[in-house]
Amino acid sequence: MPETRQLIKAKEAKQPLFAGIDLGGTNIRVGVIDDLGRPLSWVSIPAEVRRGPEDAARRMGAAVHQAIREAGLRPEAIARLGLASAGPMDLPAGIITTPINLTGWDNAPIRDRVAYHSGLPVTFENDANAAAYGEFWVGAGRGLTSMVLLTLGTGVGCGVILGGRVVRGEHSHGGESGHIILDFAETARLCGCGRRGCLEAYASATAVIKRTREALEAGRSSALSGRLAAKAKLTPKLIAAEAEAGDAFSLEIVLETARFLGVGVVSLMHMLQPEGVFLGGAMTFGGQQSPLGRRFLDEVRAEVRRRALPHVARKTSVDLASLGGDAGVIGAAGVARLDCA
Amino acid sequence: MPETRQLIKAKEAKQPLFAGIDLGGTNIRVGVIDDLGRPLSWVSIPAEVRRGPEDAARRMGAAVHQAIREAGLRPEAIARLGLASAGPMDLPAGIITTPINLTGWDNAPIRDRVAYHSGLPVTFENDANAAAYGEFWVGAGRGLTSMVLLTLGTGVGCGVILGGRVVRGEHSHGGESGHIILDFAETARLCGCGRRGCLEAYASATAVIKRTREALEAGRSSALSGRLAAKAKLTPKLIAAEAEAGDAFSLEIVLETARFLGVGVVSLMHMLQPEGVFLGGAMTFGGQQSPLGRRFLDEVRAEVRRRALPHVARKTSVDLASLGGDAGVIGAAGVARLDCA
Repeated sequence: MPETRQLIKAKEAKQPLFAGIDLGGTNIRVGVIDDLGRPLSWVSIPAEVRRGPEDAARRMGAAVHQAIREAGLRPEAIARLGLASAGPMDLPAGIITTPINLTGWDNAPIRDRVAYHSGLPVTFENDANAAAYGEFWVGAGRGLTSMVLLTLGTGVGCGVILGGRVVRGEHSHGGESGHIILDFAETARLCGCGRRGCLEAYASATAVIKRTREALEAGRSSALSGRLAAKAKLTPKLIAAEAEAGDAFSLEIVLETARFLGVGVVSLMHMLQPEGVFLGGAMTFGGQQSPLGRRFLDEVRAEVRRRALPHVARKTSVDLASLGGDAGVIGAAGVARLDCA
Repeated sequence: MPETRQLIKAKEAKQPLFAGIDLGGTNIRVGVIDDLGRPLSWVSIPAEVRRGPEDAARRMGAAVHQAIREAGLRPEAIARLGLASAGPMDLPAGIITTPINLTGWDNAPIRDRVAYHSGLPVTFENDANAAAYGEFWVGAGRGLTSMVLLTLGTGVGCGVILGGRVVRGEHSHGGESGHIILDFAETARLCGCGRRGCLEAYASATAVIKRTREALEAGRSSALSGRLAAKAKLTPKLIAAEAEAGDAFSLEIVLETARFLGVGVVSLMHMLQPEGVFLGGAMTFGGQQSPLGRRFLDEVRAEVRRRALPHVARKTSVDLASLGGDAGVIGAAGVARLDCA
């Protein structure tokens, strides 16, 4: 089990109880969460996107009921269900409009279909916002009133909490902050979105792999070359492993990624002045548990200090997120909880 | 009178009434504003920053009473006073902390001193936020629920309204969005803040003059050279006049400024997804009233279309602000009004 948080028992749980779903392009995770944000059960099922949204909604309903059973509860014990999904979406309508990682699901009325199959009232939320809300509620941002969570993975996701509320933007999906511009030059790196110079074109897993490959092809010497010749797949994990093993080039890639990220963090800080900016997702190079992860964080912080206005930098902390892959499910349950208040 | 909005008479005014102060480094503007955001009177006094904050607070109190008299009212008719000032500031404490354009006013308890001298309860606000709230309440952003106002002047100011509320940031002053980064390169333009690549280093009046001077010194041919030889002062106004008179280089400077601004607007849009982004301040090259101002706006919009994610760009309008120099006073009264609700 990849889950990081200890399960609690039904009799220890604080009422009311909620369920959360984190709908991803590969996996769908479900949990039962108590009023203090603690999980009672986890269920994970494959997304199997090609089977379409109705089939997935049916399986999500079943997974919710499985999670409820595994928590030793009956469906009536659940006050509300939170459903977090990638966008773009129309939150008031409960629709995923033109999802990139859910091919063929365009305009699927996913909120209402999940409500139908689960038999529960559903709160619908963008997954980046749900993860941010999870961190805000019971994770690294606990006790703050405003924060930003940057989720570093295949892309760069971003959720914003201001004044204790999720900032949804006028168009329902979360901030598209992965596409703030770091470099306006015509020669800036090409992003997956087709434009140039976006944060995501520098600091996502996709970008890290691309930057590494380009440098190797340009003749940079690295232990990675041997690994690739031996048919290893170039991944952030491999780069991290070589950096930890002392490969100078791999370490440089990691630290350069941190500096790119620092530029984006500075723009976010100057625009929003949150109390905290948190970095989460697979691309934090092991996070707080690993010397490389801590060095990565230090480099982000150093770049922020170098570039931010001092009166802003002094008051905004930059740190790692703490809920890992649980943030989305916990946050989905958390926004459902807000709708009960 | 530079004011753009028609005064209404006391008997036409909708109760309750408010007063607003826009405290700038050169001038202090005061107005009496009704419950629909309409002005009953305007008073302008020199800031005379060197005489210190207590003297200014005393004169602001007197100016408020003058504005009340000119509106044909008695002081009891005013429900509340809004005071807008440049930051950095501590809003809950009512203090300007380390102001850049109010030299020697560090840590002045300006809110309470203005309350003392005016005899009115005072709501304190950042001037960029007040201007944004003014546009939101009765200006270009009327009817929206979220918007960003970029104020283009000596620097680049920014106020953000989300969900009908002013976003203050955790540190009381407005967004420092003039310092979002457009270009992370070591060769990026130097900003007044001492860092490189900030929006303000490209699109403020200061930056426009600097960019123009550099190009002329590098030998660019322009009607401006003749004007400078004849001892004219290089200002955005002069550049605009030459652009309107057909000088290709001056027009290029104006349109390049628009494109730089477009980059910043895209980052703001991607981060916040407001319904509208509005451009105000002296540096809009005449605004809607002038062919050059409209061309400037068109160029900003073209750059936004070129760089923004289509689903975001489709739903966020980019337009000129409409209240001109009145936005700060009207918005200050508007935030005071919120505190009465």
